[in-house]
Amino acid sequence: MSTGPSGRKPNLAVVGATGAVGTVMLGILSERADVWGEIRLVASARSAGRKLIVRGEETEVVALEEEAFDGIDVAMFDVPDEVSARWAPIAAAKGVVVVDNSGAFRMDADVPLVVPEVNPHAVRVRPRGIIANPNCTTLSMIVAIGALHAEFGLSELIVSSYQAVSGAGKEGVDTLRSQLAAVAGTELGTAPGDVRRAVGDTGPFPAPMALNVVPFAGSLREDGWTSEELKVRNESRKILGLPELPVTATCVRVPVITTHSLTVHARFEKEVTVGRAHDILRSAPGVVLCDNPAEGEFPTPADAVGTDPTWVGRVRRSMDDARALELFVCGDNLRKGAALNTAQIAEVVAAELTSS
Amino acid sequence: MSTGPSGRKPNLAVVGATGAVGTVMLGILSERADVWGEIRLVASARSAGRKLIVRGEETEVVALEEEAFDGIDVAMFDVPDEVSARWAPIAAAKGVVVVDNSGAFRMDADVPLVVPEVNPHAVRVRPRGIIANPNCTTLSMIVAIGALHAEFGLSELIVSSYQAVSGAGKEGVDTLRSQLAAVAGTELGTAPGDVRRAVGDTGPFPAPMALNVVPFAGSLREDGWTSEELKVRNESRKILGLPELPVTATCVRVPVITTHSLTVHARFEKEVTVGRAHDILRSAPGVVLCDNPAEGEFPTPADAVGTDPTWVGRVRRSMDDARALELFVCGDNLRKGAALNTAQIAEVVAAELTSS
Ligand SMILES: NC(=O)c1ccc[n+]([C@@H]2O[C@H](COP(=O)([O-])OP(=O)(O)OC[C@H]3O[C@@H](n4cnc5c(N)ncnc54)[C@H](OP(=O)(O)O)[C@@H]3O)[C@@H](O)[C@H]2O)c1
Ligand SMILES: NC(=O)c1ccc[n+]([C@@H]2O[C@H](COP(=O)([O-])OP(=O)(O)OC[C@H]3O[C@@H](n4cnc5c(N)ncnc54)[C@H](OP(=O)(O)O)[C@@H]3O)[C@@H](O)[C@H]2O)c1
Repeated sequence: MSTGPSGRKPNLAVVGATGAVGTVMLGILSERADVWGEIRLVASARSAGRKLIVRGEETEVVALEEEAFDGIDVAMFDVPDEVSARWAPIAAAKGVVVVDNSGAFRMDADVPLVVPEVNPHAVRVRPRGIIANPNCTTLSMIVAIGALHAEFGLSELIVSSYQAVSGAGKEGVDTLRSQLAAVAGTELGTAPGDVRRAVGDTGPFPAPMALNVVPFAGSLREDGWTSEELKVRNESRKILGLPELPVTATCVRVPVITTHSLTVHARFEKEVTVGRAHDILRSAPGVVLCDNPAEGEFPTPADAVGTDPTWVGRVRRSMDDARALELFVCGDNLRKGAALNTAQIAEVVAAELTSS
Repeated sequence: MSTGPSGRKPNLAVVGATGAVGTVMLGILSERADVWGEIRLVASARSAGRKLIVRGEETEVVALEEEAFDGIDVAMFDVPDEVSARWAPIAAAKGVVVVDNSGAFRMDADVPLVVPEVNPHAVRVRPRGIIANPNCTTLSMIVAIGALHAEFGLSELIVSSYQAVSGAGKEGVDTLRSQLAAVAGTELGTAPGDVRRAVGDTGPFPAPMALNVVPFAGSLREDGWTSEELKVRNESRKILGLPELPVTATCVRVPVITTHSLTVHARFEKEVTVGRAHDILRSAPGVVLCDNPAEGEFPTPADAVGTDPTWVGRVRRSMDDARALELFVCGDNLRKGAALNTAQIAEVVAAELTSS
């Protein structure tokens, strides 16, 4: 697989290389099997000239403009929605295969939404030359759910999230860290509004994150649902190929730096057992089963952060419904939830380009 | 109502006056209409002689022994299960009406489990002379659920909790505060195990609480369920008088000092609308509706802590089931979740004693 489109390894652009996702991406590109020729780092004009390390080499960041895609075969976009919406089609028009991490194209019928462990085949059908990466909340659970679905046939999902602040980018992390500095060593957290007064600025969040949980992520949409909750619903349906699947999500932000967790109530067409679910999860690619609470084994963000797989534990069968399972799931929102999945998709494209 | 059992106000003992719940109880007794004669403070022999303030007066703590109940009409027990299990029957045998906050008697068929807004009538039938107070997780949602049930007829509950560390008593609070001091000002939270190494001792919790969420509260019971999850199920059924109600809970601890939150998926016999649910919650005693996300209004623990009511927001009707509502609920686990509900029950008993 060392020969690319013209007998060479394909060239890659990382657009948004300086952001929260981009930073993790550079680490991932340095760790994984090296399928790339040039790796070009792109960000806003503000960052042009900065030097970042990828594959052990200092690489200068270039500004996002049309020329940034000259000679590039595959581009990963780790930038805000509006930047992707404008620039992904420009890159695609130049023949670049775009793997986009933003929300701009995920529900576009002509853009596949891909999780390589679940629907790798979808990569090949990309009429717009763009492949979308799911949002991090969906990604933090969907590999495990996909494996159970393949065996039991999913019929309903009801999930609640425990989302890390890095889901709101670098600004989210900085906000929680400075709020924690303001509350640590105090007696705050027992009088109404005391935390709110102490932390001051809430940054990108609609309420304090330190010593708090915030039942609102994203923006407000129809009938009281948030954009984040609708993403979990619509993206899960699209990835699993179940356009009518009932999916209900309540998305809540928690004071964790990185790694999203979810409680999952999953109902299936077939009867389930914990033993069979354990077997499936134990052998599913990209999943780690961590479920022995008698020995203190269950996933937590503090243990799952920085790792690639989806961690699954607290597997129970509903006491009222032999076809329903309860799970607790953790996934690093910057790795599998963003950069890793994008890298995996890009590698599938690279393999296709080099074999064609 | 100024004349008690023998023409006087009834005398009250607060057993466990020095604990997390007891401390909040002394504040609540100082704020509410004063229906009590003597208030006697009781704790372990370790605390005997300590002076605490209640109703503005310094009061000496006495040790828990039979004589502590001499002349007492009503005793609140805010002590560990095993202390209640031993001492509540001793007090009851002396004619004292016991209101117990522990888990020792809640599922005893001869002990009513009471939430005054939901089943106040149950107070009067107490063959053992003991009335039980529900656990704080159930109490943090049940007033709102009870109001909706009265109108729509509840048919299923699926809940996930976001439980504060003070649910594990003073030791839980001390543990989170010292862990926060260890992680504040650091870059921790992005490498596997870095938080675990930094915080060291996990205190009463099975994993670090700072920068983490922990999907395990209480102790392990049958089929992978925790004691906390089974309490939510069994106590909700008993309080609502629905012994067959399907109830599924996943209980997760979060780094919040005080106030439990829950996401609730509630299915009803009748069709629901958000408008009607709003009307019910707006007029329900003990509930505050806080549901205008367009204006940033939703409940969070930081705002609900230190207040009496159950806060409800993020009310949505399921997109797949016209009979299901999604809610986010917050309740102070030490006030309504413990001390306040106990005080309310004791006041119902006091009114009964003084009117009989
Ligand atoms: N954080 C997550 O968990 C997560 C998960 C899945 C998907 N995503 C998505 O991934 C994307 C990036 O998120 P993030 O969290 O990494 O955000 P971030 O930390 O704010 O980084 C944003 C990146 O975009 C670049 N950028 C911003 N405006 C630009 C412009 N006009 N032209 C060129 N580059 C521009 C920034 O470059 P400068 O440094 O030069 O400003 C930076 O590299 C977003 O669409 C987000 O929704 C995030
Ligand atoms: N925390 C909550 O959110 C919550 C909510 C609902 C119900 N509850 C229940 O309420 C009870 C108290 O909880 P907590 O959180 O307040 O616990 P805590 O902070 O540990 O306080 C325990 C109290 O019990 C006393 N005590 C312990 N052993 C005793 C003994 N052998 N004899 C006499 N007194 C003894 C302690 O007195 P010393 O100070 O003298 O040791 C202290 O006053 C528990 O059953 C708990 O499950 C707690």
